[in-house]
Amino acid sequence: MLKLDFHPAGRHFLQIPGPSPVPDRILRAMSYPTIDHRGPEFGALGLKVLEGIKTIFKTTQPVVIYPASGTGAWEAALCNTLSPGDAVLMYETGHFATLWKKMAENLWLKPEFLGLPGIEGWRRGVQAEMIEARLKGDTAHAIKAVCVVHNETSTGVTSDIAAVRRAIDAARHPALLIVDTISGLASADYRHDEWGVDVTVSGSQKGLMLPPGISFNAVSKKALEASRTAKLPRAFWGWSEIIEMNKQGYWPYTPNTNLLYGLSESLDMILEEGLENVFARHQRLAAACRVAVTAWGLEIQCADPAVYSPVLTGVIMPEGVDADAVRKLIYEHFDMSLGTGLGKVKGRMFRIGHLGECNDLTLMATLSGCEMGLQLAGVKLAGSGVAAAMDYLVKHVAKPKLKVAA
Amino acid sequence: MLKLDFHPAGRHFLQIPGPSPVPDRILRAMSYPTIDHRGPEFGALGLKVLEGIKTIFKTTQPVVIYPASGTGAWEAALCNTLSPGDAVLMYETGHFATLWKKMAENLWLKPEFLGLPGIEGWRRGVQAEMIEARLKGDTAHAIKAVCVVHNETSTGVTSDIAAVRRAIDAARHPALLIVDTISGLASADYRHDEWGVDVTVSGSQKGLMLPPGISFNAVSKKALEASRTAKLPRAFWGWSEIIEMNKQGYWPYTPNTNLLYGLSESLDMILEEGLENVFARHQRLAAACRVAVTAWGLEIQCADPAVYSPVLTGVIMPEGVDADAVRKLIYEHFDMSLGTGLGKVKGRMFRIGHLGECNDLTLMATLSGCEMGLQLAGVKLAGSGVAAAMDYLVKHVAKPKLKVAA
Amino acid sequence: MLKLDFHPAGRHFLQIPGPSPVPDRILRAMSYPTIDHRGPEFGALGLKVLEGIKTIFKTTQPVVIYPASGTGAWEAALCNTLSPGDAVLMYETGHFATLWKKMAENLWLKPEFLGLPGIEGWRRGVQAEMIEARLKGDTAHAIKAVCVVHNETSTGVTSDIAAVRRAIDAARHPALLIVDTISGLASADYRHDEWGVDVTVSGSQKGLMLPPGISFNAVSKKALEASRTAKLPRAFWGWSEIIEMNKQGYWPYTPNTNLLYGLSESLDMILEEGLENVFARHQRLAAACRVAVTAWGLEIQCADPAVYSPVLTGVIMPEGVDADAVRKLIYEHFDMSLGTGLGKVKGRMFRIGHLGECNDLTLMATLSGCEMGLQLAGVKLAGSGVAAAMDYLVKHVAKPKLKVAA
Amino acid sequence: MLKLDFHPAGRHFLQIPGPSPVPDRILRAMSYPTIDHRGPEFGALGLKVLEGIKTIFKTTQPVVIYPASGTGAWEAALCNTLSPGDAVLMYETGHFATLWKKMAENLWLKPEFLGLPGIEGWRRGVQAEMIEARLKGDTAHAIKAVCVVHNETSTGVTSDIAAVRRAIDAARHPALLIVDTISGLASADYRHDEWGVDVTVSGSQKGLMLPPGISFNAVSKKALEASRTAKLPRAFWGWSEIIEMNKQGYWPYTPNTNLLYGLSESLDMILEEGLENVFARHQRLAAACRVAVTAWGLEIQCADPAVYSPVLTGVIMPEGVDADAVRKLIYEHFDMSLGTGLGKVKGRMFRIGHLGECNDLTLMATLSGCEMGLQLAGVKLAGSGVAAAMDYLVKHVAKPKLKVAA
Repeated sequence: MLKLDFHPAGRHFLQIPGPSPVPDRILRAMSYPTIDHRGPEFGALGLKVLEGIKTIFKTTQPVVIYPASGTGAWEAALCNTLSPGDAVLMYETGHFATLWKKMAENLWLKPEFLGLPGIEGWRRGVQAEMIEARLKGDTAHAIKAVCVVHNETSTGVTSDIAAVRRAIDAARHPALLIVDTISGLASADYRHDEWGVDVTVSGSQKGLMLPPGISFNAVSKKALEASRTAKLPRAFWGWSEIIEMNKQGYWPYTPNTNLLYGLSESLDMILEEGLENVFARHQRLAAACRVAVTAWGLEIQCADPAVYSPVLTGVIMPEGVDADAVRKLIYEHFDMSLGTGLGKVKGRMFRIGHLGECNDLTLMATLSGCEMGLQLAGVKLAGSGVAAAMDYLVKHVAKPKLKVAA
Repeated sequence: MLKLDFHPAGRHFLQIPGPSPVPDRILRAMSYPTIDHRGPEFGALGLKVLEGIKTIFKTTQPVVIYPASGTGAWEAALCNTLSPGDAVLMYETGHFATLWKKMAENLWLKPEFLGLPGIEGWRRGVQAEMIEARLKGDTAHAIKAVCVVHNETSTGVTSDIAAVRRAIDAARHPALLIVDTISGLASADYRHDEWGVDVTVSGSQKGLMLPPGISFNAVSKKALEASRTAKLPRAFWGWSEIIEMNKQGYWPYTPNTNLLYGLSESLDMILEEGLENVFARHQRLAAACRVAVTAWGLEIQCADPAVYSPVLTGVIMPEGVDADAVRKLIYEHFDMSLGTGLGKVKGRMFRIGHLGECNDLTLMATLSGCEMGLQLAGVKLAGSGVAAAMDYLVKHVAKPKLKVAA
Repeated sequence: MLKLDFHPAGRHFLQIPGPSPVPDRILRAMSYPTIDHRGPEFGALGLKVLEGIKTIFKTTQPVVIYPASGTGAWEAALCNTLSPGDAVLMYETGHFATLWKKMAENLWLKPEFLGLPGIEGWRRGVQAEMIEARLKGDTAHAIKAVCVVHNETSTGVTSDIAAVRRAIDAARHPALLIVDTISGLASADYRHDEWGVDVTVSGSQKGLMLPPGISFNAVSKKALEASRTAKLPRAFWGWSEIIEMNKQGYWPYTPNTNLLYGLSESLDMILEEGLENVFARHQRLAAACRVAVTAWGLEIQCADPAVYSPVLTGVIMPEGVDADAVRKLIYEHFDMSLGTGLGKVKGRMFRIGHLGECNDLTLMATLSGCEMGLQLAGVKLAGSGVAAAMDYLVKHVAKPKLKVAA
Repeated sequence: MLKLDFHPAGRHFLQIPGPSPVPDRILRAMSYPTIDHRGPEFGALGLKVLEGIKTIFKTTQPVVIYPASGTGAWEAALCNTLSPGDAVLMYETGHFATLWKKMAENLWLKPEFLGLPGIEGWRRGVQAEMIEARLKGDTAHAIKAVCVVHNETSTGVTSDIAAVRRAIDAARHPALLIVDTISGLASADYRHDEWGVDVTVSGSQKGLMLPPGISFNAVSKKALEASRTAKLPRAFWGWSEIIEMNKQGYWPYTPNTNLLYGLSESLDMILEEGLENVFARHQRLAAACRVAVTAWGLEIQCADPAVYSPVLTGVIMPEGVDADAVRKLIYEHFDMSLGTGLGKVKGRMFRIGHLGECNDLTLMATLSGCEMGLQLAGVKLAGSGVAAAMDYLVKHVAKPKLKVAA
């Protein structure tokens, strides 16, 4: 029989940019007994999480919760709002933007892929002016939606969504704005309403600290209207019936009860800490991580400091070093998982996740594991990233939190 | 803050026909730490569950596991094999067959709905001869698929799938056979290969004793071939990429890691007990339940003893008694959840689930709760169903199981 | 490797009079991470449970919590208050009273054992007038303590402690009153202060619904004073240092942290339900159980209705029936554990526990298992206890409880 | 209601020398349902842990398992083997040796306390030659037992028990050798049989990685014989009845069932890793920790490299620095618990635990937290301990372990 308690002595460090480590509190909540999804207790749970999740998206509009992982919510965003043959303007920020574009093709849409040439586009955020220019050229309004990734998980770049909104407005173009913040939500500041996003796509296994299996569509009034005439076939993903039943806290089909328990706990944890405090914690840890990479003399995948991700940091290896060999070595000797380079940057870089259930000492453990692994791999380092990060953390020491409350 | 540990003193009895009670072993397995879904350990987990689940479907062909609840797997079965405008022959066994038909319409298919008239169709299994006759009439082979529900959860009828296969063969019709056994799998005998089923749809929250959130498509060679030319748009549900990556134990997108831990444990539990023993246990408990209903002088929803469900029993109320009022009373006074009547039988009957993690004393508790609730509701009973069920169980006493193994 | 998830399909029914089934809420609480027992968070936990447990004992005086099982708390009560050679008056209510007396001998005390002759004493409560008479005869006040068992777990008799207090007072005797309510606490009404008890001994694995491993001494002012001059050697059990450190929420040595988490949760559960409601629930279920035994035509071990235990019911087998053979049969065929007959009543009776995490349907499952097992064993029954119990429960139906709270 | 999920975002680092962090595997095992401690399944559990724990003590003789924390096992060792007024030779290695001596006094024994003068004795191990000399002087054999602490938790000194054995033998003295390895067991090599120890005392919450609540006496034939004539009163702690019932896997009173589940899992974990591998892991991490302390320019509490503890490292603060102020600062800013200085060294030093569930990155996190905290506290450091420790770990890199097993 396969043993699932895999790890050797001591705790595994799961420092990929998601799924992120699930806190014990959430694992415990997920072990509450499954209840009747048509009973009165379920309604109370449903109403709570449906209301709470709005706070995280910074929206007062409906958020649809799917009993499915994030890729499904990508599909939901497209098939609820668009019709076969519709042109959509997508932007190549990295591997996940590329996968989303491929999905659009599979769903009978006509994606047009903007982006900077070559690898350069994978090191910078969405160039809003390119979107503006393209939309201005689309005088016939053939383009029905602009799709961008907020936090590109494959590179560690967090694009400026407000700027994209301004670009669309400047072009006076009616296209919907559809944003993927699967890995950004609850780690990086995100404002569905303020930024005028029409559909925001997200998932559970990143900043929300849940296992994978739940995903989201936050839906604007304009998107809802579009869904009434959109012609792509849809059933499981269809918004209207879900939103209708959600009013009482229920779902038209069986929801993912135990993961909703986890979501309820996650919301409690995040709102107890304070959403802005959560963002500040991520920013501080990410800054310390980048200070370390710089001290090592290595390059950060994100080349534009204005769009550094608070969620993860991509670390580029020197010429001739296989990033995956370094990862494997770290995995085997220090029991830590790092993210692989994906697509165009395969083997060139690895990714350090510092999201969700992360704090100063977990980050220091992570950076120590990287530094020791790089040394074992024979990578020449300019200096100690660990020392630099400690220096940063001490200089920007976090305020102590009250831990005991009656 | 909402309290999620809802229940008053003592254990709640969740006797709906799914989600069924999740055993502690599975809840504990689901609390293993989430791991990197691209790491070596995940591959071992993936290979194990992908292989094990085939045993449950009695197939040697691929079983696709979706990180989504059962309704999604319905959609997957249709959109992988069919093209817009395709005619599909569906059979009205009850509420879920009706919902599936509605989904087919939403997905641009042309379902034709066979069935016995009125409520009668909801009390009997699929009439294979009606299917045979209809297919024989379809000389042009316009019908691309026959879709039937194996265990109709809304009525407690388990149709004879082998007979449907014979009907299609007798008509020498090339239509695919697509079967929903969402609530039958791992409780009622099911034979994907032997019965020549092309796509079998199932879910996690019934006989597998998991929370909702995982669903399945078992896929025949013929179905796979059909998927190569089927034209309905699909991305998240697409088989080919998943089956390809599954060969190494991975998924193209983030799988539902913690529910897969649960599935691994569920497989261990079921295979330890022995699949045929699991079926026999369900048959025996279901028989005892029916003996009780009969002793009460009440009618069983399933009117054909040949297709009684081992999973649940529908209990029809006497004229003038609101089944939901009885359920509410039982819920409030005896802390037990029963299944409501759905669709055409709303208010006329309730459903007793006796599936998954169920044994003699849990069934007796359930029947006691029903009997006391019916008395409280003022329903005149012919006799004690509890006494009759005890009598049945004692006469058909189960062989003791060895519990301690080194 | 030994498999610890012992049980076959379905939930085991643990219906012994303790350890009682541990609710999931408590098991989850016990899995909180172990913390520094000298840190600030521990102090908050300590103060909470030390205060809360007083409510359960109905005392305002100190309750000492030991990281040890109940037998240890027996020893603690004696060695803190007495000196070598001290005479103690004990009363034979059953097996546990007998074990306690044996312990007193081992601890250099001189126990005198009162009681009714033969088996009769095991069927009735403490005869307070015998204690009064004996104390009146002890004009030299050689007797230093009166030790009685409140709820005798081996028989299901709950003695009248207030009457014992009155007896001591009537005799104007200065002896301490030491009471064991290991299996009575939090199930049967108990009033440490009002009844003038000097030391009350209890444990965690009964009405408190915790696993074994924690035990208690509630201590009166008079007992504390006695401890200052008592000469029996003591260290681990010594009250004074513990009570001193408890003022800040700490212990002189390492406390049983994770069981204290469980205790904290147990207190929340009991006080949410309301202590008097907990008592009423036990009384009602016990009454239903006795109605069943009577309907079977079997005798209840407790022969005096005034002292029936709300915690457990002893069931006497007809001549020639081996109670343990019946228990084994029930265990093997219906996966239920019942309590064995102990000491003088070994093989003559078995014990049904209906304490702690118990409700109507759990009791009905239990009684069904007994009735079916008795039938399998060939025991002639006068009638159906199950039917009688259902009748009782319906006639005395419990008020529904509100389950969902914001 | 008190919130027990105390900690702010991210995992707390519990780096005190026990209770050590409890691995999830053990917490899960502790949540198995409590069973009948008189049923057949319990016997299998009992036999397994009673056999397995012998491997950890390296003995073939009985190991008594108490449902009580470690201080109780101290008492058990004394009261089972000694009589009132017996002289015992104890050795002052630190705070816990001092507490044990105080306990001996409370138990009517006459302890004689050997040791080096002043603080010096707290920085070195047991001086076996002092014991030898004293025993040689005791020609009347008034001394009945020699009591020493193997791993002194208050200082981080692991004394040479084999040397003590040789000293007793050299003196040809019949005294029993009683050893406390509460914090050493399963972390530091220990050989009950080979070293001729008569009673070894230990507990659950250190190298065994359990919560507190279980403790041990490993008992030699000679000790068992002594217990037959030893006159100290005893009941709960009495060996003979326990050892007798343990032969079938049971206990005379209610054992600590759920902690025994944890012990079973702990044994599986330790024996899977290999006991010698566990020791080597502790030695390597302890060495890295000491390298860090030395690099900081701080002194290690243990002044004799031959007896450095693999379990914990005591770090002496420079003159004028309050160790507890540093600890508080680290606790509040970096969410890490360190051990306080006890007794004679209160405020002078703190203790770093690196035992049980510890690995390279957890140690690095710990050392980073110390280094940052020392900097925040304004302690002048000679250099980076973190850098030195990383250097050590890389140079002595651990062999990767196979993690996935079928």
